[in-house]
Amino acid sequence: MKALGFIGLGNMGFPMARNLRDAGFEVVAFNRTRARAERFATEGGRAGERPGDAAATGFVVSMVADDRALEEVAHGADGILENLPSGGIHVSMSTVSPALSRRLSALHRERGTDYAAAPVFGRPDAAEARKLWICAAGPGRARARSVLEALGQGVFDFGEDAGAANVVKLSGNFLIAAAMEAMAEAFALCEKNGVSREAAADLFASTFFSCPIYRNYGAAIAAERYSPAGFRLALGAKDLGLVLAAARESAVPMPAASLVHDRLLASAGRGRSDLDWAGLALSVSEEAGLRK
Amino acid sequence: MKALGFIGLGNMGFPMARNLRDAGFEVVAFNRTRARAERFATEGGRAGERPGDAAATGFVVSMVADDRALEEVAHGADGILENLPSGGIHVSMSTVSPALSRRLSALHRERGTDYAAAPVFGRPDAAEARKLWICAAGPGRARARSVLEALGQGVFDFGEDAGAANVVKLSGNFLIAAAMEAMAEAFALCEKNGVSREAAADLFASTFFSCPIYRNYGAAIAAERYSPAGFRLALGAKDLGLVLAAARESAVPMPAASLVHDRLLASAGRGRSDLDWAGLALSVSEEAGLRK
Amino acid sequence: MKALGFIGLGNMGFPMARNLRDAGFEVVAFNRTRARAERFATEGGRAGERPGDAAATGFVVSMVADDRALEEVAHGADGILENLPSGGIHVSMSTVSPALSRRLSALHRERGTDYAAAPVFGRPDAAEARKLWICAAGPGRARARSVLEALGQGVFDFGEDAGAANVVKLSGNFLIAAAMEAMAEAFALCEKNGVSREAAADLFASTFFSCPIYRNYGAAIAAERYSPAGFRLALGAKDLGLVLAAARESAVPMPAASLVHDRLLASAGRGRSDLDWAGLALSVSEEAGLRK
Amino acid sequence: MKALGFIGLGNMGFPMARNLRDAGFEVVAFNRTRARAERFATEGGRAGERPGDAAATGFVVSMVADDRALEEVAHGADGILENLPSGGIHVSMSTVSPALSRRLSALHRERGTDYAAAPVFGRPDAAEARKLWICAAGPGRARARSVLEALGQGVFDFGEDAGAANVVKLSGNFLIAAAMEAMAEAFALCEKNGVSREAAADLFASTFFSCPIYRNYGAAIAAERYSPAGFRLALGAKDLGLVLAAARESAVPMPAASLVHDRLLASAGRGRSDLDWAGLALSVSEEAGLRK
Repeated sequence: MKALGFIGLGNMGFPMARNLRDAGFEVVAFNRTRARAERFATEGGRAGERPGDAAATGFVVSMVADDRALEEVAHGADGILENLPSGGIHVSMSTVSPALSRRLSALHRERGTDYAAAPVFGRPDAAEARKLWICAAGPGRARARSVLEALGQGVFDFGEDAGAANVVKLSGNFLIAAAMEAMAEAFALCEKNGVSREAAADLFASTFFSCPIYRNYGAAIAAERYSPAGFRLALGAKDLGLVLAAARESAVPMPAASLVHDRLLASAGRGRSDLDWAGLALSVSEEAGLRK
Repeated sequence: MKALGFIGLGNMGFPMARNLRDAGFEVVAFNRTRARAERFATEGGRAGERPGDAAATGFVVSMVADDRALEEVAHGADGILENLPSGGIHVSMSTVSPALSRRLSALHRERGTDYAAAPVFGRPDAAEARKLWICAAGPGRARARSVLEALGQGVFDFGEDAGAANVVKLSGNFLIAAAMEAMAEAFALCEKNGVSREAAADLFASTFFSCPIYRNYGAAIAAERYSPAGFRLALGAKDLGLVLAAARESAVPMPAASLVHDRLLASAGRGRSDLDWAGLALSVSEEAGLRK
Repeated sequence: MKALGFIGLGNMGFPMARNLRDAGFEVVAFNRTRARAERFATEGGRAGERPGDAAATGFVVSMVADDRALEEVAHGADGILENLPSGGIHVSMSTVSPALSRRLSALHRERGTDYAAAPVFGRPDAAEARKLWICAAGPGRARARSVLEALGQGVFDFGEDAGAANVVKLSGNFLIAAAMEAMAEAFALCEKNGVSREAAADLFASTFFSCPIYRNYGAAIAAERYSPAGFRLALGAKDLGLVLAAARESAVPMPAASLVHDRLLASAGRGRSDLDWAGLALSVSEEAGLRK
Repeated sequence: MKALGFIGLGNMGFPMARNLRDAGFEVVAFNRTRARAERFATEGGRAGERPGDAAATGFVVSMVADDRALEEVAHGADGILENLPSGGIHVSMSTVSPALSRRLSALHRERGTDYAAAPVFGRPDAAEARKLWICAAGPGRARARSVLEALGQGVFDFGEDAGAANVVKLSGNFLIAAAMEAMAEAFALCEKNGVSREAAADLFASTFFSCPIYRNYGAAIAAERYSPAGFRLALGAKDLGLVLAAARESAVPMPAASLVHDRLLASAGRGRSDLDWAGLALSVSEEAGLRK
């Protein structure tokens, strides 16, 4: 049985690690708060003491919260870079900045190890059902492919530059947030004109917007049902912050991204960080005088 | 053979009138520039001299460019209101303001005639193929149903208030414009980071945005192909203007709608009124320094 | 003593009418709610029964709330147009749309009477102190000048097109709102970084922004003191609506105007219509998590 | 004669260094491109070989382009931190991020040296005329005061946190950019309605906006005169980028700042980096169809 390290057993990482175990890997998992790693051990995995234990397997996957968390597990004496054997690979599946992905890719190259960025689209239920969509890029993406296929329903290849996968992932999250903002505004206009939010959502989702984002988020925003959170609003605000940072570095004005970033930040400022990010629509309804 | 009037033989109206003729109606058509009405007559229809000739059939459908055009055919001695027989009906399929729709609905009620608003989603090719999606509302919508079904693939009922159908139609056009703006920004960010616009568009359109708007407009914006126009940018600007007018009357702040309205207006200011409205993406590429 | 009509004894109009009486005019005043006209009569003026009574003097000034109110006093058997003697003049000082101003100007020309638009900058205390700044335009502006000079500290001439004065007035209100929004954002950023709002406001107002708007609104926004209202937020929202309507008719994209209009509308939606319009800053503070 | 180091002899730094020399200091200057340092030496100053030469005086002032440039002169064997004698002070007058200012402040504290942030408002002509406005903060601000007074017409104290001065400076630049955007939009609306841009600018600048920003930038934007650049548009875009980075770190939604940042970035994308930053108004005129 082939060994494989997995770092980050959060809402996404835990079911992903389990799927890898089910696919026949001996999974050595590390998690910052140890309890979850121990729980994983009771389910047939192994708990590592530090990120380096996962990296020592030679093939380590990471799925952590943000740039800072990824930097913490990558660097230092206990970190991935220090403990990954020559010829090993780090597959970074977190939603992080393209800039960090590029820096890590360069560091791995210097050390004779491989790196691939492979951020995913999908919520925890999709992670569990192996229904994730995965954007892969970076020098190690070909080697990573079979592992990625055990985690999702499709892998898209974006080439040698690891940062490219992160750019596409962030672009996707921006598209989703923009669609939610637009629906929130449209449904508020409808409601104020005596049109049922649900009826409007149904029309769009069953015709020219007949796709998961409009169907699922449309139903949530029509019903104003934002908890439990599939994806926390605070994380959405973080991701749009990454979009804008990438936009600034790339000198791309993105006014719609600015708008939804401000909306998410404002929603967090109003105490809604733990709602689902579709909860950005609450401010829209309030501003229209529809809710208090 | 039942007679039916049709006003407005533009890119949308002409194939719609033809479909009604094919469905067995004797269609009396009026068009402001007479040549098109005469062409329609050579194809088996009849050409009226004035809007009232179409209205005199007792069942008149209108499909004209904007509020002003609809007011012109509705009012005056030669207009619909004056010439529609008692018990007759006017089915207004143009994209106009909810306010105008409500005024016309009230005028018809006063005169003992019926009114239904039935704006459509779809471009000329959809009109030709009877693939329009139709939003129906107003007192006469039930009577209009069979005729509407001869024109589209689905009719959605939004109740007694005629303006409701127009609000939903305008909301849909706003959602489309917002999606295009977001794609334009996302693809510019991708391109500047070395990611192919087409590759990004494909990923989204084949996964969680697998619906016609993202598929079709996504491909156009990825390839930056904006002519010939399926829907002229100038008309899009007009429609977003109607969205904002309705938003103001309803006291609904719609910042994303403001943004895309300004984008469309700015694109018109740069001389792009005759491109397809997806051409709003050109400014985005220019502002990112990708095109001159 | 020369007779002069005055229509609209609100917070602005009342002190203006009083100043005209003090300047030696016999003022015939009309107000929709009669009580204020009667109070004016006790102070040495005369109360008219209908707008036409004020117009019958041959020189009528109007200062009413909005387009609708101006249309009400202008039209009808009791209105200005019907009762103004040939050769008379209507000086319209309300903040209304350029479009309405132009329509009224044309109607007066047809009837052989004169029209001038003369909207003002300044709050009720400035009206009382004859410190208003006045934008004058339209065919009758030269005849109106001496009366206007009795009401303000400066009269600016914008030519024959009456609408021009209204465009400038609306532009000014937009500039003020934009400055307030910017200060609200800047002070929130300062406060969150441990900088006193007052200290920041003082710096700007005493150096390169040393002018009334930054000094007065800056102090109010720094102290978050929004009542009593010098200018009601609801009126500000109305005025920005007029700015955007004029922008749409003129095909001028105005994203900053859209932003502050949405901010004002959203503030009204949150129940703040009766605060001073500087109260738009409350949402900014809330969105930054500084207030609840 | 007291020695003093000065780093950065650009358009701002050169006249500032000269003023310090005129105030009686023996100025050791360092500039990345050596020619300007040599020119300074011919005018009675001394040219250093590396930043450390300026720092070795014990009192070093820096005025460089951006965060990166400041980091370059601060760090390394030839840098300020390494060569400033114990008890010395670094007065950083560049427009940089609060975050960098705070990091440098902490590093100086660790080494037993002092740090003050003292960014300035004013263009090169103001620098030459000792008319700068200076925001001072950080542990060393009291010691720096007399030197700062030799450079400007006023010094404002923002306390112990060095970053505070940078936040205020960035806030000021944002306020200026927002005022310029608003004027650009207002003047475009005026022009399209037949009102002279200059007449509108004059009214505002001579009444409630009678302050340098509206007077000077108003005149430039009215006349559409954007070169030579007093402050390059590219630097303005950089500064607004710093505003938004600070906003993100502080969790303050700043939609007006986002708007002007996007406007500046877009203007740079259209090839206008070397115009004065008031040149952001060109896009506004183009989008209104007023210019090509």
